[in-house]
Amino acid sequence: MEFWFSQLDTENVKTTVRVEKQLFSGQSDYQRIDVFQSDEYGKMIVLDGDIVFSEADEFIYNEMVVHVPMAVHPNVKNVLIIGGGDGGVAKVLTQYPEIESIDVVEPDEMFISVSREFFPETAKGFDDSRVNIINMDGLRYLRRCADKYDLIINDSTDPFGHTEGLFTREFYGNCSRALHADGVMVYQHGSPFYDEDEAAFRAMHRKAFRSFPISRVYQASIPTCPAGYWMFGFASKKYHPLRDFDPKRWNARGLKTWYYTTNLHQGAFMLPKYVEDILSEEEHRG
Amino acid sequence: MEFWFSQLDTENVKTTVRVEKQLFSGQSDYQRIDVFQSDEYGKMIVLDGDIVFSEADEFIYNEMVVHVPMAVHPNVKNVLIIGGGDGGVAKVLTQYPEIESIDVVEPDEMFISVSREFFPETAKGFDDSRVNIINMDGLRYLRRCADKYDLIINDSTDPFGHTEGLFTREFYGNCSRALHADGVMVYQHGSPFYDEDEAAFRAMHRKAFRSFPISRVYQASIPTCPAGYWMFGFASKKYHPLRDFDPKRWNARGLKTWYYTTNLHQGAFMLPKYVEDILSEEEHRG
Repeated sequence: MEFWFSQLDTENVKTTVRVEKQLFSGQSDYQRIDVFQSDEYGKMIVLDGDIVFSEADEFIYNEMVVHVPMAVHPNVKNVLIIGGGDGGVAKVLTQYPEIESIDVVEPDEMFISVSREFFPETAKGFDDSRVNIINMDGLRYLRRCADKYDLIINDSTDPFGHTEGLFTREFYGNCSRALHADGVMVYQHGSPFYDEDEAAFRAMHRKAFRSFPISRVYQASIPTCPAGYWMFGFASKKYHPLRDFDPKRWNARGLKTWYYTTNLHQGAFMLPKYVEDILSEEEHRG
Repeated sequence: MEFWFSQLDTENVKTTVRVEKQLFSGQSDYQRIDVFQSDEYGKMIVLDGDIVFSEADEFIYNEMVVHVPMAVHPNVKNVLIIGGGDGGVAKVLTQYPEIESIDVVEPDEMFISVSREFFPETAKGFDDSRVNIINMDGLRYLRRCADKYDLIINDSTDPFGHTEGLFTREFYGNCSRALHADGVMVYQHGSPFYDEDEAAFRAMHRKAFRSFPISRVYQASIPTCPAGYWMFGFASKKYHPLRDFDPKRWNARGLKTWYYTTNLHQGAFMLPKYVEDILSEEEHRG
């Protein structure tokens, strides 16, 4: 049987994946949620038509948002994950014994229950006793936080639809306030390649750059993302992602990874000229 | 109108691009050649169903196969391009005044004439007086070369079909013989992500690693390549791509780029763990 799911990367480009079965389809209060079994990517979660998680490449995203800040900040105890309903980010964080609490602020209960049902290996990140799930909108939650976290990871989806508020200037300001004086924020920064993504990419850097003393962007090759190329933001009050990076300390932990290495950590910040130019234009905008 | 071209990245994943018009379709002695006008990628050349050139992302590939070796080897005078019928690699090379000759060994005359007709801005690389086009099979040409080139760039397509001979052990041995004692070879190394590409990726590294004293792999994010992630090989008799790399000399040239920077040069060799593991397994195979 020919059975294909297509993700619209732009209105003119699709990533099309052969599907064996649709395992789930539902409409939550926030979004449409589908789960597919595919030959190439294993099981995938699709939110409003976009692949947000696949068994074959989730390791790249999850390792890059966790290990990069953890190899820089010397003393992370309290972490906030905004979004993160699949549990993948929480699962990687639970490998660090010094972390005392992981708050996951995910408004969509259906997303969490679907993840628990179809991705128990990933969602077991939620079962760690340090993890607290808070069913609330991220921006609303942040408004009441001050000086509370060492690390915030914005794992929410695109800056459109119900997560739009998580990409406003108010959001970055609230994250800054919710962090301790040496806190770090990591956020998904979208893809800079296609014209229709570039405006969102520019706006994100402009807002983070003005809300934090240190703001750098890093990259990874993630096949299910548009153009296969994804960026992350590292915004920080004190620590620089390269100057305060401690590869020796991180390597001494002996953590098993499939994507991240301390060598790749450095390379991830070495960006193509066209990306450097975009960032620099936004930094120098009047 | 809904008019879409699909590239089969694997038998289970397609990259699907909206097409405005098919500008050319022909069958040469070697392959089927199509030219499409697309909204997202501009004009594209498709060989046997695979996008090998698009106006929107060709700069990435062409800059990465030229500037990386040129920023390492201190004295490149004679260059051989194997394949390269679109002229893009030759065009980037002609920016270097010290290069005295650029031999392009491309057996497919139709590919060259199609490139000249539909991509005159790129194919003008052929018009430089230092460029000699040789219509011959690359492996046959190489058999008669010894101690002739400073740099060989293998710009041929996949290790299947009529270009299969360009990925054999004999091929790497012949390249080594065709190079001067300090020569460098750069070749497209395929994509390591999908299972069905991994075997070819492994075999290529094994052969290059045994044919050259120095053999390193580097990466770029190229949207029209499978998984958006492409690798290149740097095989060399004397110069190491990082230890003999001279960013100061290269930057003094003041060349205009869109992808390459000397900072990115270093990052391109900092690979994901799963790629490092594959390479290391092949290096230690008995």
